[in-house]
Amino acid sequence: MRLQKAEPRAEPKADMRRRQVIDAAAECFRREGFHGTSIARISQAAGMSSGHIYHYFDSKETIVEAIVKQEEGDFSELLQLLARDEADGDFLDTLYRLMDDLLNRILDPQRVALMLEIASEAARNPRVAAMLQESDRRLVQQFAALAEARGETAIAAVDDPESRVRLEIFALLLSGLTLRSVYSPAIDRPRIARSIKAVLTILWRPTA
Amino acid sequence: MRLQKAEPRAEPKADMRRRQVIDAAAECFRREGFHGTSIARISQAAGMSSGHIYHYFDSKETIVEAIVKQEEGDFSELLQLLARDEADGDFLDTLYRLMDDLLNRILDPQRVALMLEIASEAARNPRVAAMLQESDRRLVQQFAALAEARGETAIAAVDDPESRVRLEIFALLLSGLTLRSVYSPAIDRPRIARSIKAVLTILWRPTA
Repeated sequence: MRLQKAEPRAEPKADMRRRQVIDAAAECFRREGFHGTSIARISQAAGMSSGHIYHYFDSKETIVEAIVKQEEGDFSELLQLLARDEADGDFLDTLYRLMDDLLNRILDPQRVALMLEIASEAARNPRVAAMLQESDRRLVQQFAALAEARGETAIAAVDDPESRVRLEIFALLLSGLTLRSVYSPAIDRPRIARSIKAVLTILWRPTA
Repeated sequence: MRLQKAEPRAEPKADMRRRQVIDAAAECFRREGFHGTSIARISQAAGMSSGHIYHYFDSKETIVEAIVKQEEGDFSELLQLLARDEADGDFLDTLYRLMDDLLNRILDPQRVALMLEIASEAARNPRVAAMLQESDRRLVQQFAALAEARGETAIAAVDDPESRVRLEIFALLLSGLTLRSVYSPAIDRPRIARSIKAVLTILWRPTA
């Protein structure tokens, strides 16, 4: 299954400009790091004056916030696919059908570089940390709500510590892939996907 | 069980100087990022002239290499404890006794900030990536050799893809903890430790 993107719409000019800034900033953060990137540098990369950039974003942090929302939107889109899957089988079967898409998305080297840069900024910058944490909370909630709608009671209650930890193990495996792709790039995707499935089947179906 | 450090020895003066540079650089990388840190800045933080620093390290990358070796040494020390554990039980029991030490070490915020910074540098700098990958290879080899010595055949053969993926799932969970500690800092350590144990028991003991 492939991620079906919505048909491209004509974006209003302001949205196009914002996106131009976000893309240029993302490229600068990847290449030179968040701290090594000034608004002047982003302005150069975007081919736009600094004043113009400040019209859309009041700081580098606000640009990071837009990047984090974009990343959240991408995963949220995958979750929408999960919700709409009409094929046979239960929630785990549906999740397994999405696994390749999920791994490809997570292991995309451009994404890895950008998200590691933002995560390391978050480790020293409480504003950026708060953005990541709120975004994560929303995605976990969305995933749990989806699980509940499909009768997956073992992972549906985000406030129940046991349910939460079952979700967290899945999150650890996915985050682990992001970081490990730097340490061990020759990852065996099909085998890893199978093992993740095995782990989820066992942890989320303790009585199976 | 606590990590028993070797008794401190008197370090030769050159080693002390090197350590002084490494500590100052680590602090700069954490606070301002690898790209935001110049040798001049490290020299200021270490209270040493730039010329003096170049006497020990020919570039920022060489300092990163020393930091990566230090991190490898810390984990290697934990593995030594694993090798020396004389108490009852098998390899997994021994590993479980070390789990709290391991999680405390991995989740140390200073370590997280530094390792995320180095990983994001690795995502754009092939020299740094090669250092992380070689270090990781050595640690995986050491762990697998230890497993073999204790008769843990399911994870002992690093060249066997199935054995390798069983090790890799453990590595994903540990790396996931590093990255997730930024996204979801209120992690439930005892429950996560229990779940990791459950995963290993099932994956590494398929016939149990």
